[in-house]
Amino acid sequence: MPRPLLLSPDRLFPSDPAQRDIARRLYREVAGLPIVSPHGHTDPSWFAGNAPFGNAAELLLHPDHYVFRMLYSQGISLDALGIRNAAADPRESWRLFAQNYHLFRGTPSRMWMDWVFAEAFGFEVQFSAETSDLYYDRITEALATDAFRPRALFDRFGIEVIATTEGPLDTLEHHAVIRAANASGEWAGRVITAYRPDPVIDPEFEGFRDNLKRFSDLSGEDAFSYAGYLAAHRGRRAFFAEMGATSTDHGHPTAATADLSVAEAEALFDRVTGAEVSAADAELFRAHMLTVMAGMSLDDGLVMQIHPGAFRNHNRWLFTHYGRDKGADIPTATDYVHALRPLLGRYGNEAALTIILFTLDETSYARELAPLAGHYPALKLGPAWWFHDSPEGMRRFRSQMTETAGFYNTVGFNDDTRAFLSIPARHDVARRIDCGFLAGLVAEHRMEEWEAAELAADLSYNLAKAAYKL
Amino acid sequence: MPRPLLLSPDRLFPSDPAQRDIARRLYREVAGLPIVSPHGHTDPSWFAGNAPFGNAAELLLHPDHYVFRMLYSQGISLDALGIRNAAADPRESWRLFAQNYHLFRGTPSRMWMDWVFAEAFGFEVQFSAETSDLYYDRITEALATDAFRPRALFDRFGIEVIATTEGPLDTLEHHAVIRAANASGEWAGRVITAYRPDPVIDPEFEGFRDNLKRFSDLSGEDAFSYAGYLAAHRGRRAFFAEMGATSTDHGHPTAATADLSVAEAEALFDRVTGAEVSAADAELFRAHMLTVMAGMSLDDGLVMQIHPGAFRNHNRWLFTHYGRDKGADIPTATDYVHALRPLLGRYGNEAALTIILFTLDETSYARELAPLAGHYPALKLGPAWWFHDSPEGMRRFRSQMTETAGFYNTVGFNDDTRAFLSIPARHDVARRIDCGFLAGLVAEHRMEEWEAAELAADLSYNLAKAAYKL
Amino acid sequence: MPRPLLLSPDRLFPSDPAQRDIARRLYREVAGLPIVSPHGHTDPSWFAGNAPFGNAAELLLHPDHYVFRMLYSQGISLDALGIRNAAADPRESWRLFAQNYHLFRGTPSRMWMDWVFAEAFGFEVQFSAETSDLYYDRITEALATDAFRPRALFDRFGIEVIATTEGPLDTLEHHAVIRAANASGEWAGRVITAYRPDPVIDPEFEGFRDNLKRFSDLSGEDAFSYAGYLAAHRGRRAFFAEMGATSTDHGHPTAATADLSVAEAEALFDRVTGAEVSAADAELFRAHMLTVMAGMSLDDGLVMQIHPGAFRNHNRWLFTHYGRDKGADIPTATDYVHALRPLLGRYGNEAALTIILFTLDETSYARELAPLAGHYPALKLGPAWWFHDSPEGMRRFRSQMTETAGFYNTVGFNDDTRAFLSIPARHDVARRIDCGFLAGLVAEHRMEEWEAAELAADLSYNLAKAAYKL
Repeated sequence: MPRPLLLSPDRLFPSDPAQRDIARRLYREVAGLPIVSPHGHTDPSWFAGNAPFGNAAELLLHPDHYVFRMLYSQGISLDALGIRNAAADPRESWRLFAQNYHLFRGTPSRMWMDWVFAEAFGFEVQFSAETSDLYYDRITEALATDAFRPRALFDRFGIEVIATTEGPLDTLEHHAVIRAANASGEWAGRVITAYRPDPVIDPEFEGFRDNLKRFSDLSGEDAFSYAGYLAAHRGRRAFFAEMGATSTDHGHPTAATADLSVAEAEALFDRVTGAEVSAADAELFRAHMLTVMAGMSLDDGLVMQIHPGAFRNHNRWLFTHYGRDKGADIPTATDYVHALRPLLGRYGNEAALTIILFTLDETSYARELAPLAGHYPALKLGPAWWFHDSPEGMRRFRSQMTETAGFYNTVGFNDDTRAFLSIPARHDVARRIDCGFLAGLVAEHRMEEWEAAELAADLSYNLAKAAYKL
Repeated sequence: MPRPLLLSPDRLFPSDPAQRDIARRLYREVAGLPIVSPHGHTDPSWFAGNAPFGNAAELLLHPDHYVFRMLYSQGISLDALGIRNAAADPRESWRLFAQNYHLFRGTPSRMWMDWVFAEAFGFEVQFSAETSDLYYDRITEALATDAFRPRALFDRFGIEVIATTEGPLDTLEHHAVIRAANASGEWAGRVITAYRPDPVIDPEFEGFRDNLKRFSDLSGEDAFSYAGYLAAHRGRRAFFAEMGATSTDHGHPTAATADLSVAEAEALFDRVTGAEVSAADAELFRAHMLTVMAGMSLDDGLVMQIHPGAFRNHNRWLFTHYGRDKGADIPTATDYVHALRPLLGRYGNEAALTIILFTLDETSYARELAPLAGHYPALKLGPAWWFHDSPEGMRRFRSQMTETAGFYNTVGFNDDTRAFLSIPARHDVARRIDCGFLAGLVAEHRMEEWEAAELAADLSYNLAKAAYKL
Repeated sequence: MPRPLLLSPDRLFPSDPAQRDIARRLYREVAGLPIVSPHGHTDPSWFAGNAPFGNAAELLLHPDHYVFRMLYSQGISLDALGIRNAAADPRESWRLFAQNYHLFRGTPSRMWMDWVFAEAFGFEVQFSAETSDLYYDRITEALATDAFRPRALFDRFGIEVIATTEGPLDTLEHHAVIRAANASGEWAGRVITAYRPDPVIDPEFEGFRDNLKRFSDLSGEDAFSYAGYLAAHRGRRAFFAEMGATSTDHGHPTAATADLSVAEAEALFDRVTGAEVSAADAELFRAHMLTVMAGMSLDDGLVMQIHPGAFRNHNRWLFTHYGRDKGADIPTATDYVHALRPLLGRYGNEAALTIILFTLDETSYARELAPLAGHYPALKLGPAWWFHDSPEGMRRFRSQMTETAGFYNTVGFNDDTRAFLSIPARHDVARRIDCGFLAGLVAEHRMEEWEAAELAADLSYNLAKAAYKL
């Protein structure tokens, strides 16, 4: 007989009764706050077209590399899971997931999934081999109904605003449709974009020169001259801002920055747009462009996000056969102190500029990032990110950042996901963990409860709105 | 008056009553499971010859570098402790240990020792200056009895299987004696070996060229030609497997791997077997051989263990006067992401291969190892190792690994010790800590208790058997 | 209406009732122990001249870079805060602090300040915009009274001994005045110096050559010859020791050490005292001099402290306009294993030598420092330092250091501060956290309560006295 699926109202709160009682009180006041999602990877076409999602596997298994990488790590083939394999029977792929659901014990994917199953779909029995078909059928049926179309879910989830992420070569046509729907009163959902220029900033990006060609076409500038290239950025940034963007995003392999003279930059630009690009030039160009982008942010007001430190596509065979974003990006040790100095030397003292730093290297929390953000006016700290978007990851973030940077140099929560249905679950985890963390401070008499209550609302809602100008 | 020696039945459980109650229930079901010890350094001659151990100092002080390094760090001379000093009176050395037993407060050595004193020898008063002679005499007397001979202790400790570690130059004669005793019904204890080829793989190992000579003799191959050298490995691996080995072990200074062409490898082999070996060539050869060994493991099914990151013999004076393994090996920062890529590029997607990674650099847990093991089918994570084989070390391991790698990419506990009497204590610490960790997840409603109960048995017993093919 | 300001008697104790009860009992016995402050940055002229402190902003805001860096990080100008700006109205600067006091929630500055407000000044309402003037006036008035003069506060705080830090070019005239006051019976307070030779050891220190000139004058040696330079050190060390010093202190950018031959050292000395100094030579000279200083410590008995790993003056603009020590020093990743080997190879086995290591890189705690200090007789571990002098920082220190190094390779607490009024608060935090940590060990049956009680006194008082020979 299948076991009942129950989400405890006390989940993720400390079990110490004194702390738990405080956490409950704090959480009660923030649980229902709207969701502000200032950084993520949902697909704007969902909200533009509002077409129904497909079957259970298409929605919940195929796009979620957190999930299929774990199954793959235990020897289950990606083909069998239906990853880039249209021949796979989605019901069979779903069964593999169900049979191996125990692998996710102790992981955030398990918590997010259970929330989706219980709260979004109303299941009352646990997901397992035994209930695999029941789940597959009920989810697939639900997805065909209007209540599970993207806009209906957006509204039901209480999302106040969500940011997607697009490259400079994107025409933002889906955002245009959404804005038209907003203007006509057809739908009130606020979906904005963010400017992620890696494809035209990273000389090692696939098709860099082709990208510059298209960058020229779209911007009406000659993106093969340095001056034209900068003008193209300015133009596309302005266009993105018109379409609602309040931020840019930069996903470099390291946090390296540089601040070259115009002459040096022009010479470098010529080299990296040439036929052969050295790794050192590519790195230097990315580094220089971070500083350039910070300068443009100071001009146009877009908040700058830096997401460094992932070794992308670590598994060559997998990359060749299945492409990007298949769970084979691995964090590396990341220096910030030396790396950011050129940029900070130029713009770090600008209180009107906001640069939000993320890291995958937790050793930098207390050692580098908290001291940097606790000093430079331009810097703020992004939340625990990616592999660290988890209960223990968030606790390490708070316990290692707060004493030096305080809470007010942080910017609330980012869900950073393309798994749309998990968004409420992810924000709920963050709110519960923050309330639990604050409860610990109150229970140890390091803070008063009224202060913790203020902070709970700030961390759940206010700081994200303020930092991202939403 | 000496104080009573009491081992609390609740030791190492969380003190929060909700968590403690769950931990007690989980532990009750796994406390009595047999010990599976898949990696360690006990001496097979003990079980072959079954001779009585000597006196208290010989058994518990002289071989335990965890213990005498701490005494040495506080200014007590190794000579006085009887380390490589036959002239020292063992009773006097033992007294020094007793007088300074407070130095071990808060360390795992203290817990293991107290278990040995209370459970193995039945002491009811604490070890101290006052009880030093009582301890010395009672232990030394007990060791002369049949009940304290190696095989009797092995049986009494509930050891199902134990692996020792031998080099390729070892004839495994003690293992042969044990296997004969098994076959004749004289003794049922299962003692297997593991293949640790560092002495013939590391060109910087003492006597490398002499080792190769002996490697040739034992294998009947010409280990001074690259082809013969590889054949010699294959031969010795097969012999070790015949003698029960299910694994190999590799203790390199770094995790560097390389994947050279045959021509490159042959040229490198010629250089490292020549008169002068550069540090870079030595490192490259070790790196290449890890990949070669992985390939052989894929062929012969031996599980591959990699134990990198110790700076061996950091204290030159000590090494000169007292030799290896005297407490002066110090961990260093260790990169895995770049280092393992050549090997993983070659064999990482092989689900039939098992490579168990260890680290002394805890910063790699959440940043590198959990993402790698949570993706590559060939990788599993060894337990908290050496300095981290401790309550807090194990908690850090679980809290930093689990959310990304899950529990099922880990392999249970290794005691990794030559301190035979402490083996049950070490496994008991691991079981208690794991039960406490799981109890925390249950108490925070992140897992159900039936799942935790399954996991407690897996972490205590099943995973080690499965991962090491025991 | 302002909220009441209350310091809970249970603050910083674990909230688990079992642990809290033990912590209370442990703390009760150590709360009143005298303060031993073996390393800090108070100004000896305070205790020599005993002049009243100025107004609230001058005492509590302007010198405390922990405080104004946080305000600066949120866009408040240093000018407005009165930092290097005599034109600022101190009452207005104080109001900025008051209005933004919420920024310090969760930071140690908040706890220290609240202690100063409640315990030193007797406030019963919280500091806030509303109470800013009340605070300013009452503090400023109090400071004009005899009870708030430096010597009176020293006595009231129960300080047994405090060490200040001076460079070799300091004439120690204030210490001479204090010692005369001691001798005459005018005041019994024990204020000693410590020898911090960075200005004459670091070739990159501002005015290095001028410093050497003055070093020659003060010592009567020719500090521009290597032999004279060493003799000058010996002379100044002896003078410092006469004035009470029991220790030296070395604040290098890295932990690099070297052990050059006399000929090599002389050649290097010539280069670094020449017109142009390369970065590599500067680093090598600092490295060599650490080993030289260790040798002198072995001769004269001064305890050696090494405080490496801060990137000083990271913010160029700020340094240019506001100078050193303005909150822009940022920790960097710091290697100890390779860096210290030359020094330890020479002196590490000397049990008569004490070298106290500090770090700003917590990743070295369990990986490098605990194994090093748990082996080498000459090494001890300084407490959690600077950014890590905080409840969570101290907990990480204990939980990551203790299992390998034990408690007895640590040296108690350092307040390391120039914020004189916060000294009792800082020691109190350390005692509370240590008692809480010990209570956790007792509650988990990893230690008995009588042992924890001994350790609580050792960590609060005895270890500092012993390690620093006070």
